[in-house]
Amino acid sequence: MSETQTNHRQTSGYRGISSELLNEAKANVGDQLKIQDGEKIYDGILIPRTELGDEHVIVIKLKSGYNAGVRVTEKTKIEITGKGGKPSFARPSVPPWREGLPRVAVISTGGTIASRVDYRTGSVEPALTAEDLYSVVPELSQIAQVTTDILYSEFSENLTTKHWSEIASKVWDYYQKGMQGVVICHGTDTMGYTGAALSFALQNLPIPVVLVGSQRSSDRPSSDAATNLIGAVSIAATSSISEVIIVMHEKTSDDYLVIHRANRARKCHTSTRDAFRSINSAPLARYNVNEKKMELLDESARKRGQSSNSALKPGFDGKVALIKFYPNMDPDVISWYVDQGVRGLVIEGTGLGHVSRYCYDSLKRAIEKGTVVGMTSQCIWGRVNMNVYYTGRDLLALGVLPLEDMIPETALVKMMWAFGQTADAKGVSELMLSNIAGEISSRRTRTAGEM
Amino acid sequence: MSETQTNHRQTSGYRGISSELLNEAKANVGDQLKIQDGEKIYDGILIPRTELGDEHVIVIKLKSGYNAGVRVTEKTKIEITGKGGKPSFARPSVPPWREGLPRVAVISTGGTIASRVDYRTGSVEPALTAEDLYSVVPELSQIAQVTTDILYSEFSENLTTKHWSEIASKVWDYYQKGMQGVVICHGTDTMGYTGAALSFALQNLPIPVVLVGSQRSSDRPSSDAATNLIGAVSIAATSSISEVIIVMHEKTSDDYLVIHRANRARKCHTSTRDAFRSINSAPLARYNVNEKKMELLDESARKRGQSSNSALKPGFDGKVALIKFYPNMDPDVISWYVDQGVRGLVIEGTGLGHVSRYCYDSLKRAIEKGTVVGMTSQCIWGRVNMNVYYTGRDLLALGVLPLEDMIPETALVKMMWAFGQTADAKGVSELMLSNIAGEISSRRTRTAGEM
Repeated sequence: MSETQTNHRQTSGYRGISSELLNEAKANVGDQLKIQDGEKIYDGILIPRTELGDEHVIVIKLKSGYNAGVRVTEKTKIEITGKGGKPSFARPSVPPWREGLPRVAVISTGGTIASRVDYRTGSVEPALTAEDLYSVVPELSQIAQVTTDILYSEFSENLTTKHWSEIASKVWDYYQKGMQGVVICHGTDTMGYTGAALSFALQNLPIPVVLVGSQRSSDRPSSDAATNLIGAVSIAATSSISEVIIVMHEKTSDDYLVIHRANRARKCHTSTRDAFRSINSAPLARYNVNEKKMELLDESARKRGQSSNSALKPGFDGKVALIKFYPNMDPDVISWYVDQGVRGLVIEGTGLGHVSRYCYDSLKRAIEKGTVVGMTSQCIWGRVNMNVYYTGRDLLALGVLPLEDMIPETALVKMMWAFGQTADAKGVSELMLSNIAGEISSRRTRTAGEM
Repeated sequence: MSETQTNHRQTSGYRGISSELLNEAKANVGDQLKIQDGEKIYDGILIPRTELGDEHVIVIKLKSGYNAGVRVTEKTKIEITGKGGKPSFARPSVPPWREGLPRVAVISTGGTIASRVDYRTGSVEPALTAEDLYSVVPELSQIAQVTTDILYSEFSENLTTKHWSEIASKVWDYYQKGMQGVVICHGTDTMGYTGAALSFALQNLPIPVVLVGSQRSSDRPSSDAATNLIGAVSIAATSSISEVIIVMHEKTSDDYLVIHRANRARKCHTSTRDAFRSINSAPLARYNVNEKKMELLDESARKRGQSSNSALKPGFDGKVALIKFYPNMDPDVISWYVDQGVRGLVIEGTGLGHVSRYCYDSLKRAIEKGTVVGMTSQCIWGRVNMNVYYTGRDLLALGVLPLEDMIPETALVKMMWAFGQTADAKGVSELMLSNIAGEISSRRTRTAGEM
């Protein structure tokens, strides 16, 4: 838990004019307010404010479930239309284990799925422990003997390579202890990055490693938290797949979940429940929520129980940068990164893998200094092909690596992982061009030699 | 035309062992070769090599139309299986204008659609002028009185704000001269960026401004060049829409083209012909290629002939940077950009518009120094909403602007344009949050005040 987050929960955070108006109205966090400013009227529950906030803004939770900031002046009128109750969250008792069920570890790292809603304020707090989850979703006890573990309570945008290493090691421990599957509750913002990291750090495990998240917190009628968690535990307990996977809604309806190979998956929508998509490959499987059955979509998915060559390789070196190219990009940013000691660069080029010729000198210098430079495409879908145009061939000639059909995010994570395995640029380049965990497809039209 | 490109066309570029092998075989560029290395045999037409190239690689054009680099050693055997002919491209005569047809200007900037294929080598050269295009596609003379104009011969990854200004001014000139529509042939790599730029620089024109490109050069059976160009000229000549639009294949088949509002469109696939997608909005219209008819999909599209408030605003200030956030991103890159004199930053955050808290200090410093910082989402689809989580509220409190549902590329271009209109950060912020040319949708659930 970050200090900032802890602070937020201990004070309403209002100051200046906002604080005066709220004091005058005797309003507390959690109260239902009517805020009138001239002809405009806003109704909602008062929620705490960040200390950094503009003192002219009061934040309320609207009926829709969304929060809104209302700009106030000295003339604004505030009226209490309902008093907030006391916090209503009380943890139910933990259900007992049932004999004979598979054993599954549920690791909580934070994010919306692991959020406790403060029912008083409607504010989403990253505080639900795995144990809370288990209690709140008692269906889990019908599916597996669940061991819960609170690793972090972080919004996923704050996770780094350090966390990836720790999560990988934790999963490895549970595998060694005989768990039939491991579930990781994770914020959706960077779930794709963490999933890719685990796919490289946890190689050839004979059990599924399931990342699961939620796009809507459990205080909203449309929440996907319980459905996703139940599905994830069920898949971890019984599925025939033993890869690192991401389980989320397949469509906006609750009927199906979809199982993505984690290093192929990408959050493609800010808010819908089916935000994740498999890129450049079909999802591995679909899970029928009502029938509790999995339908395999990709026969090449690694099967449960194959335990040869299982390995934990948790090293990451975060000194790798992602640069998205755009018109007028200052090529000096490439040199700046190199001078900062960055060891690898993943470029999100345009189209088949291009940048402007104004970048050539900086790239040449970077590569001469031993930096590994890989090319991906900001198109997201498709494969880089740097043999078609002069730009691509020039970049290949400079030593830029064409990273096939890896998505940029996975390419970045993989390069961080590769530098965690070897300090040697040549070794890293070889790893980058090898298919380690299904992150690269073979070319459909592969016809001739390498370049 | 860049020097590099010119050089490439004048020499085969091979050196070292490649050159020796080719000399030994008496092979010239354009010859059909059989290259045998151990058990591997490659067949294709020899094409010129970049001077920067690895001397162990010979590039051939395969039957599939793709180029491939073949690694050679001293033991490699090369055999000529067919001699290359002389260049077969001869420009047909320009067809005469037909009375009574609408007048359309076709501006050529380069890219695959404006590429002349060197039939001798199969290499794609950005050398086809608008006049060549007109001659090669004589159908155009049935549709409009076409005026052609070669502005550049550039791969689009090399275009910058300077080019955007010049293209906008050129279009404005043709509008003033009474053209019923203007077509811009453009490389697809950055067509979305240029399209967004024109949508801000050319306001409320009463005629359509059509960007068109091609994903497959005209030497390939699957080329979309002619279909797209004929469609673009037809739409420029007669369509009821008068916005800045992108016209490309709707699907992989040739039956329909799709008309995107340019500032909503994004190249989403490296190679398919239907690579462009409208993001966060439906396409404006569909064009039936066989029936030569347009079907309007968005009634809100600006209609042809509305000439009030038409304006040319071609100023851009390129000192704006795009930063895609990722785990372990060095927050100092933000400060580096600010110290380089960058006036605005567009962040591609995660999810609803987040970055790690490790970035707060750098962002605070940037904003205190007067840098305008806008937030978009790397999800691409959806809208940022920075009121839901503490991270978002913290960023709002720091002064980060939530850029609604603008795609990051359009937000970047718009900020470059905004700084071309006013030096004042407040003025730029206001422009960024205003819907100038359909680049922002109103919220479906808009309910309360601003933040």
